[in-house]
Amino acid sequence: MELEVYFKFILSFALILIAARLGGEVAERYLKQPPVLGELVAGIIISPFALGGLIGDPIILNFATIQNPFGLQGEFNIMEIISQIAVVALLFVAGVETDVRAFLRYGLTGSTVALGGVILPFVFGYLITWGLYPAIGMAGFLIMGATLTATSIGLTVRILMDMRRLQTREGTTILVGAVIDDIIGIVILSVVVMMAKPGGELDIGQALQIGVIGFAVWAALLIIGVRFHKYISKIFLNPFKRSGTMPIFALLIGFIIAYLVTLVELHPVVGAYVAGLMFAATEEKEKILDGVRPIMLFLAPFFFCYLGMQVDLHLSSIAWIIAVILIVLATIGKIIGCYIPAKLVGRLSHNSSMIVGVGMVPRGEVGLIIASAGLLAIGEPFRELFAAAVLVSIVTTLITPAMLKPLFKRQRASG
Amino acid sequence: MELEVYFKFILSFALILIAARLGGEVAERYLKQPPVLGELVAGIIISPFALGGLIGDPIILNFATIQNPFGLQGEFNIMEIISQIAVVALLFVAGVETDVRAFLRYGLTGSTVALGGVILPFVFGYLITWGLYPAIGMAGFLIMGATLTATSIGLTVRILMDMRRLQTREGTTILVGAVIDDIIGIVILSVVVMMAKPGGELDIGQALQIGVIGFAVWAALLIIGVRFHKYISKIFLNPFKRSGTMPIFALLIGFIIAYLVTLVELHPVVGAYVAGLMFAATEEKEKILDGVRPIMLFLAPFFFCYLGMQVDLHLSSIAWIIAVILIVLATIGKIIGCYIPAKLVGRLSHNSSMIVGVGMVPRGEVGLIIASAGLLAIGEPFRELFAAAVLVSIVTTLITPAMLKPLFKRQRASG
Repeated sequence: MELEVYFKFILSFALILIAARLGGEVAERYLKQPPVLGELVAGIIISPFALGGLIGDPIILNFATIQNPFGLQGEFNIMEIISQIAVVALLFVAGVETDVRAFLRYGLTGSTVALGGVILPFVFGYLITWGLYPAIGMAGFLIMGATLTATSIGLTVRILMDMRRLQTREGTTILVGAVIDDIIGIVILSVVVMMAKPGGELDIGQALQIGVIGFAVWAALLIIGVRFHKYISKIFLNPFKRSGTMPIFALLIGFIIAYLVTLVELHPVVGAYVAGLMFAATEEKEKILDGVRPIMLFLAPFFFCYLGMQVDLHLSSIAWIIAVILIVLATIGKIIGCYIPAKLVGRLSHNSSMIVGVGMVPRGEVGLIIASAGLLAIGEPFRELFAAAVLVSIVTTLITPAMLKPLFKRQRASG
Repeated sequence: MELEVYFKFILSFALILIAARLGGEVAERYLKQPPVLGELVAGIIISPFALGGLIGDPIILNFATIQNPFGLQGEFNIMEIISQIAVVALLFVAGVETDVRAFLRYGLTGSTVALGGVILPFVFGYLITWGLYPAIGMAGFLIMGATLTATSIGLTVRILMDMRRLQTREGTTILVGAVIDDIIGIVILSVVVMMAKPGGELDIGQALQIGVIGFAVWAALLIIGVRFHKYISKIFLNPFKRSGTMPIFALLIGFIIAYLVTLVELHPVVGAYVAGLMFAATEEKEKILDGVRPIMLFLAPFFFCYLGMQVDLHLSSIAWIIAVILIVLATIGKIIGCYIPAKLVGRLSHNSSMIVGVGMVPRGEVGLIIASAGLLAIGEPFRELFAAAVLVSIVTTLITPAMLKPLFKRQRASG
């Protein structure tokens, strides 16, 4: 019996990844959408709340129901663990892929765009949840605000690449903004997770402290990477080059840093991302990516599909209303919040500022990570809001390319 | 608290892989031994029975103690799950790497060498355990016999490569023999696991049935791979080439087949290996290896290090005696058992037959997989014998290169 459970886990693991892959393939090839959308939707389809629930076997696929999977006591979930490993690998790769020099060049405009694009959606998300779903409490309001803050680097880069606009001034501004609002988002996440602990409450001093530490850790590792990359190569990477395991060792350092930042109350994904940044300036950057990307490609779809599997679309009407309002305000809030600093600080034209604003709309990985950390921290009462957050991510990603195309057309016409 | 456990798991996961990597590096670079030895020894050192037990934290690293990790009810072990995923990936890669054509050419000699090398060590292992450790019961005798049967493909290939003797007649015979005795070993494993179930006992008819099914499944997938590899490419691989996820999809098919073979009472590793064989004849072989090897390189050390972590070297004197006797008989049994068919069926010279016999001595992955499945199936009473099996693997691997060198020297002198 016990062995059988292990064997069935192997099956579930493979079925989830195959569903994710098929969903990703359909999204990419037939719907011209980023694969991550297909992975999410595949997860919603096979979830225990939908198709998975129809399978007679109590174990297969139903590892995903958070509370008490297959009759074990305790809430330690095996899928969640694999998900965590996957998301650390994902954020590490995102960090390594960052173009550190462009990052520093467009730093000021990007930071203000990020900040503008964070404040409005955060306030909107907080207020809507507070107004329409008051029972969830302060931690829930903050998490819903935080899920709306972070633009998806992956989705944004993908859309700009497809339109051949990544290497423009607007493109780089969007990219830098997306990176910085991710960091803001995961710092907010760290604050919220601390608050959601039993007995935790909003302590402005402590929240500020986490924010300051978050940025300090982030800046420190970035600077270490830029200034001392030769020493990093020499100490951490060179010893493992002969055996060909250098990229894996870099990733393992990412795991260690992911854990270490939790000691100063930051979320592991912050650590994984900044650890990646630290390696982004080294000469080994490309080799690290070659060795680690296959691992990320293997595991990351598990994270997104598993996210989808936790979505129960049997929502109350109030949750549907919240989802629709959040989608509208997440879009408007981001466009306005980013347009203003792009025009005033970055001195871009009206049309270029609109491109920056619209380009920042897609919410993806980080918003979903925040929502999933919320589900883990708050538990069952958060499930409806979690579904709403996933819907925001799906819809904002779907509408962005359609909104961007006319803006780029107008720019070409005038330029 | 709950979140903290997740974070600590990330740390444990990384620490185990880093210990494994450092052990592997030391073994390879300073001791000129295969990395797997270093990974095993690193595991023994950091295990909860040694260094890990000294760490004050009840969670870090101690995920490894099989029974009831960190106070959860039920015996479903998170490390075991990751280990299972790792070993499926490992055997899949071993399958894909197999040179199917050489395999078919040296099939007859290789099969008889394999069979000879299986029978003697199996009988020795069974009898020693029966004589000196009778309390463990029939399933235990069979498992200890089975752990001695399988020559390590990886270790053998590595040693022959280092000596530039892989592409000789002896080299290919050893390789084919090592592959076939792996299959015999994991088929025996399947029989034993069935017997170790509550209420299970030795049913010769059923054991034969599993053996026949095992070889039938294996032969069928090999033939499908050789004959129909164009269709496999067309149906399963081509659709995923554009998105670059073809290797991952092949690996996922390996996971599915690993599960499917459990339905006919075979162990998942049999399925993973034959699934790999099925792809070994396709044109995509190299691309699959490029995409899947990094995943295997990342995960496989976890398997070996975790194996080491389960070794408790506080053995009773009888267990130490068993270990020493097993090491001696595993070596002698393999040399004699392989020498005879190599000389009589393969018509090799005395010296060449000795090379084949000695080359088959190292026990590795499959023996360890069998021992670990035994530990999982029988539980705590098996722990001492498990340690003995790990010691056999370590020592036989250590002594082989030293025994081979004079034989090769003599051959060069006479040739």
